[in-house]
Amino acid sequence: MADLNLMRELATTGDTKIVLLVMDGLGGIPREPGGPTELEFAKTPNLDKLARESMIGLSIPIAHGIAPGSGPGHLALFGYDPVKFLIGRGVLESVGIGLQLTPDDVAARGNFCTVDENLVITDRRAGRIPTEKCVELVKLLKPIKLPGVEVIVEAVQDYRFALVFRGKGLSDRLGETDPQKTGLEPLPVKALDPAAQPTADLANEWVAKAREILKNERPANMVTLRGWAQEPGLPKFSEIYKLRSAAIAVYPMYKGLASLAGMTLVQGLHSLDEQIAALKANWADYDFFFFHYKYTDSRGEDGNFDAKASEIEKVDAAIPRILELKPDVLIVTGDHSTPAVWKAHSWHPVPTLLHAPGLTRRNDVTGFGETECLKGALGQFPATDLMPLALSYAKRMNKFGA
Amino acid sequence: MADLNLMRELATTGDTKIVLLVMDGLGGIPREPGGPTELEFAKTPNLDKLARESMIGLSIPIAHGIAPGSGPGHLALFGYDPVKFLIGRGVLESVGIGLQLTPDDVAARGNFCTVDENLVITDRRAGRIPTEKCVELVKLLKPIKLPGVEVIVEAVQDYRFALVFRGKGLSDRLGETDPQKTGLEPLPVKALDPAAQPTADLANEWVAKAREILKNERPANMVTLRGWAQEPGLPKFSEIYKLRSAAIAVYPMYKGLASLAGMTLVQGLHSLDEQIAALKANWADYDFFFFHYKYTDSRGEDGNFDAKASEIEKVDAAIPRILELKPDVLIVTGDHSTPAVWKAHSWHPVPTLLHAPGLTRRNDVTGFGETECLKGALGQFPATDLMPLALSYAKRMNKFGA
Repeated sequence: MADLNLMRELATTGDTKIVLLVMDGLGGIPREPGGPTELEFAKTPNLDKLARESMIGLSIPIAHGIAPGSGPGHLALFGYDPVKFLIGRGVLESVGIGLQLTPDDVAARGNFCTVDENLVITDRRAGRIPTEKCVELVKLLKPIKLPGVEVIVEAVQDYRFALVFRGKGLSDRLGETDPQKTGLEPLPVKALDPAAQPTADLANEWVAKAREILKNERPANMVTLRGWAQEPGLPKFSEIYKLRSAAIAVYPMYKGLASLAGMTLVQGLHSLDEQIAALKANWADYDFFFFHYKYTDSRGEDGNFDAKASEIEKVDAAIPRILELKPDVLIVTGDHSTPAVWKAHSWHPVPTLLHAPGLTRRNDVTGFGETECLKGALGQFPATDLMPLALSYAKRMNKFGA
Repeated sequence: MADLNLMRELATTGDTKIVLLVMDGLGGIPREPGGPTELEFAKTPNLDKLARESMIGLSIPIAHGIAPGSGPGHLALFGYDPVKFLIGRGVLESVGIGLQLTPDDVAARGNFCTVDENLVITDRRAGRIPTEKCVELVKLLKPIKLPGVEVIVEAVQDYRFALVFRGKGLSDRLGETDPQKTGLEPLPVKALDPAAQPTADLANEWVAKAREILKNERPANMVTLRGWAQEPGLPKFSEIYKLRSAAIAVYPMYKGLASLAGMTLVQGLHSLDEQIAALKANWADYDFFFFHYKYTDSRGEDGNFDAKASEIEKVDAAIPRILELKPDVLIVTGDHSTPAVWKAHSWHPVPTLLHAPGLTRRNDVTGFGETECLKGALGQFPATDLMPLALSYAKRMNKFGA
């Protein structure tokens, strides 16, 4: 586990460049016993060559046997203890649509629902209204004002929206209002400890005003609120690692996670080509680049072994364009495994490659793949160790002690 | 380290089956430099085939360089932090003879001793009386009653017995009465903190009554009490792992350890054949089977390399009968190493095999042995990680975080 106090003490500034290339859900398992994994099946001449000239190994995102969500998986890559720094659902929903939260924020995940004349819930998801309808209803709710706090409400998808209160002294120790089944009234927001009572009062006031606005709408005439959470208060990259850091990601969720770590978000990216172009365009201005590729995970979740391998090949083809920039350290890894056979995030360790010309040891491997990684110089290690390794190989760390 | 709170949160119920096959003291070292270990010397065609189709590695019971007792070794396999959850000698002695303890119990290890007319100890072990005599004397002590608590006293072996007080509000913060050398009187039971005074008073009352009963016996005419301990309060398998668990063990010590973890004990087993039959007979009723084989450790402690290898071969021959049941996960490991060369428990990492058809990665190994395990996909890992791995490979774990 990276010790953030130690990092804060030892990390130094410098003019070296680090690229953390995350292929989401990279790790896999064989389709048939004894066969190759997706990464081993894919034709990856560039990564294979790099593996022979670098150090490879397997990173363990959380712990043996624990399959991580995207939040904990990325926190570990960024060097934060993913069990200590929890990202609640309200925050994840908010950062997932690109909201940048502050430590003063309390966020909830909202659902539009349908209630009858007695305020009894008849449909917890309001007939799964389309996103367009959600956007329209959220527009009606935006004018709601509360005393002493800023209120942010944004549509997410279908019947879901994000609600953020921004102000001093707020608490996320609040109960959920969704009774979890139809035939019951929404619950009031309860304070789970006395200090949360003022926030609970604000939340109840907001719900009452929302109900007043929605009461003649059909089918979405009420809201429920869940997953209250505060911004996790991660110490920022600039502070702990002395890095000017940028996130080169397409999906809002990963931009949101990067923003929690204090990274600058490069906006308006839609493709791998645009990401590579953005990396070049921003090369001079940052020390650290979090480069996220989503579709390896998507095809793994689909259970499509060949398509996942093909996504890996697309990233492999982009490797020479990244190397052209001559990063001092290039790490290629994933935030977790998403084996196509398993169709979900899994607990399997993640193939990881660390390229740092002139400073790495030799490993006798033929290429980049799960089985070869067992023989690699990095061994099997906690994903939280990657940031200290990245900084040291980038000559940005002092020694510890005299 | 398995985080039990995390396990409690993530483990789910399911209809999969897990077998944890523990060959006690499995790990070994070569008889001569460069030679095979006991496991490598043994002919184990079934385990070798399984290793090629599974993942192997080396588990570290406590920490590098720490040789575990049976208690900590098994606690680690069961996923409990063996340094946090201590099993005191009194408890180990009690569970070792099959007593099932409750959180209300305080247990001590008792010795019969010999005192002269001035109550000065002349023999701390009463001439090492035979177990039959011990049983006879314990019978005399059983009628002793104390106010407000149940008293359980049972013979263990030779001059040793187990004493248990069962009642509300008892404490194990008590001093030992054995002065550790002859020529001194037995000490009174002292309370090591004020809250333990009532228990100390009860203990002294029991000793006085025992002395009264024994005073005309020879040579065992007095008792000393040591190793006061309370039941360790392990969270139970059903609660943390959502497993219906059964222990298929011959020796009382291991049944006792399993009972502390909340496993159901299959009684009346005397041989490997009976154990296999019990596994089949109970297959439908449990999710998890702790299957313990003792004699690998016994022959290691004897220093008999060939005999230990032969015990390993007996277990190897039973593997096909276990596989017939089609466990979703079969783990083969030990609670520690007991190299015949060392004639005792040792600190060497323990060969471990995890079989989970369809979900494991490939490792390029030829068979099951300490040297091949170095190349295995499991790597070297804390033994406490085995339960999270077992549950994940058995599809009984949710992912962590969104």
